[in-house]
Amino acid sequence: MNKIEHIGIAVKNLQESNAVFEKLFGQPPYKEEEVASEGVKTSFFMNGPNKIELLEATNPESPIAKFLEKKGEGIHHIAFDVTDIEAEIQRLKQEGFVVLNEIPKKGADNKLVAFLHPKSTNGVLIELCQEIK
Amino acid sequence: MNKIEHIGIAVKNLQESNAVFEKLFGQPPYKEEEVASEGVKTSFFMNGPNKIELLEATNPESPIAKFLEKKGEGIHHIAFDVTDIEAEIQRLKQEGFVVLNEIPKKGADNKLVAFLHPKSTNGVLIELCQEIK
Repeated sequence: MNKIEHIGIAVKNLQESNAVFEKLFGQPPYKEEEVASEGVKTSFFMNGPNKIELLEATNPESPIAKFLEKKGEGIHHIAFDVTDIEAEIQRLKQEGFVVLNEIPKKGADNKLVAFLHPKSTNGVLIELCQEIK
Repeated sequence: MNKIEHIGIAVKNLQESNAVFEKLFGQPPYKEEEVASEGVKTSFFMNGPNKIELLEATNPESPIAKFLEKKGEGIHHIAFDVTDIEAEIQRLKQEGFVVLNEIPKKGADNKLVAFLHPKSTNGVLIELCQEIK
């Protein structure tokens, strides 16, 4: 794990939250992207070596819609940058973590991603992500 | 805001959670520290340019005890590294954020810190922190 790649924050309204985070960072998001397979619209802000991802649900079955319903707006996950996601999945499985995606899937922002179940990580939803070359 | 300085995670038992995050990162915490004024014991893990702080309550009045009671274990706050915390507090107040500590206070890990109320930041508790020289 090389660094925190990004923190994902679940929001009700992406445009309104973009305005809030633009004030916080003093700069607008560098990209917006819809990930239809996950039922989300996203925006990304740079913050030095890290990013903040805002996530709005695009349908009621989206994991983000369910999160908002249960917990309200707030931090949804932490994503760590990894060099070799498949090796890291195997390592973490052997360490006893519950890996939700044994085969990495395509995520936002040109990444291969896999999640660890929060029950094995003190309630924190952790994403591993590797840049697609 | 220069980068994510750390992410704070509320845990029930620091020693047990240290073991989990040691497996995750492949290295032990680089320090443990008690902050009596906040009613917490903390441990810190390095992750490239970022850190993860685990927080256990040391008394029932601790903000971490109240968080655990209300929400359970999980991410408690994001801390951003700033160069001039007093200037940043003034800037963010003028932008309409609710600053909880207009005068920065001494936090863990040799930092001056101030928090923004989650109601002005989409449910996210944000900490500003500046290294004490």
